[in-house]
Amino acid sequence: MQILTDNPNKDFSMGSFAAMFGCAKSSISEDIKLVRDAMDEVGLGYVETTSGSKGGVRFVPYLSDERVAAIMERVKTMFEEPDRMLGSGFLYTSDIMYDPVIVEGLAGIFAKRFAAIDADIVVTVETKGIGVALFTARLLNLPLAIIMRESKISEGSTVSINFFSGSTDRLQKMSLAKKAIAPGARAIIIDDFMRGGGSIKGMKDMLREFDATCVATGVVIAAEGGRYSRAQDVFPLLLMHEEASGVSFSVNPELIK
Amino acid sequence: MQILTDNPNKDFSMGSFAAMFGCAKSSISEDIKLVRDAMDEVGLGYVETTSGSKGGVRFVPYLSDERVAAIMERVKTMFEEPDRMLGSGFLYTSDIMYDPVIVEGLAGIFAKRFAAIDADIVVTVETKGIGVALFTARLLNLPLAIIMRESKISEGSTVSINFFSGSTDRLQKMSLAKKAIAPGARAIIIDDFMRGGGSIKGMKDMLREFDATCVATGVVIAAEGGRYSRAQDVFPLLLMHEEASGVSFSVNPELIK
Repeated sequence: MQILTDNPNKDFSMGSFAAMFGCAKSSISEDIKLVRDAMDEVGLGYVETTSGSKGGVRFVPYLSDERVAAIMERVKTMFEEPDRMLGSGFLYTSDIMYDPVIVEGLAGIFAKRFAAIDADIVVTVETKGIGVALFTARLLNLPLAIIMRESKISEGSTVSINFFSGSTDRLQKMSLAKKAIAPGARAIIIDDFMRGGGSIKGMKDMLREFDATCVATGVVIAAEGGRYSRAQDVFPLLLMHEEASGVSFSVNPELIK
Repeated sequence: MQILTDNPNKDFSMGSFAAMFGCAKSSISEDIKLVRDAMDEVGLGYVETTSGSKGGVRFVPYLSDERVAAIMERVKTMFEEPDRMLGSGFLYTSDIMYDPVIVEGLAGIFAKRFAAIDADIVVTVETKGIGVALFTARLLNLPLAIIMRESKISEGSTVSINFFSGSTDRLQKMSLAKKAIAPGARAIIIDDFMRGGGSIKGMKDMLREFDATCVATGVVIAAEGGRYSRAQDVFPLLLMHEEASGVSFSVNPELIK
């Protein structure tokens, strides 16, 4: 069970388990049935099997609606903490975005949403989205590419583009090593925050430079009234509402059944 | 079993499992025994229980020596790939450092090494060590703080220090939000690469600014002949040997039993 859950969305043959534990394939199949029933009971994912001599098995992480609601409620409460709004008008989010348990939970929601999408790679831009992107990649059994804010000599040849960042109100630069994405790749973009959509647009422009395609985009927080509502392919977990009286948050209604 | 392995180093009471599954504590204890035996068989960790009415249980991830050797052999082979050395003399490592499966394996080795150390937080500096640091924090059930290369307005008040980077041969800056580390915290430093030790020293200076202490340091690769050999508290996984004929790697002898 641990081998399966430690390797989400990865196929194992019954034969490999039989060899690992030194027993017959038939007893492995029986154990897999027990594991499948146990997983159904716990509600953290399900076990998929294909039968026949080439029969295989994989674990698909799948958060129940109750678990999704609990994770989102916890994160919403954290964002609403009173001392989180800085004097500069920015929201302090590093402790949330770098909390391993929180980002694994948020990644689980993205992985559930994007599980059926045929993708080759997860892409993010440094720094605060890296945790969520890394766990999303882990759960989807995909590699991760991290776009840098500046090109570094240790990356070899890089592709650089400029983009307009609405949140800082200025032109910024992003760079990615030429080796980082294969031509024709299908990419899932993950980022922590979206206001005007400048850095998401920058990442899509970057993907085009690699002849790669964006097949889905997930952001942890999107400012309501920002571009996300018009960009149908962006999936936010939380919406931020800014009013004269202050900032409030709500969970994406699509996540509440 | 999945709840335990998904929450490494976190204590659960028998009572909480009894409530979760709607059964008696005694049958939970029997199940825990089965889980413990199964974990011992697989060799990915062990289950610790404390008995009595307040009896609890936790999962401690623990890679067997064979698993550690297999992970290190695989990573060493990747570093030795011929097209990894860039014309600039730098080693291209982003694909390794951002591979979720690889970094989880490397983090497992750090977590095994540092399991007995009483620590409050894992600290790294952006960008390439973030993946290993995040999974190490996850396995040790600790939060993570990421030191930035430049201070950002969205971080609120920050502490900044300058340090000399041997690999780029110039003075660099690092910044950390004042909220990121509590005074008196005991920190485990994790980084991807160490040559002269400048950025490790910078991180230790930073910790002192927070009245925090470094209780252990782990780096994925250390250049042999660099400062690591004299700094007894730095634990590298791989050693890099630079000779006129090229670069070669060896696994830290302490990891080979």
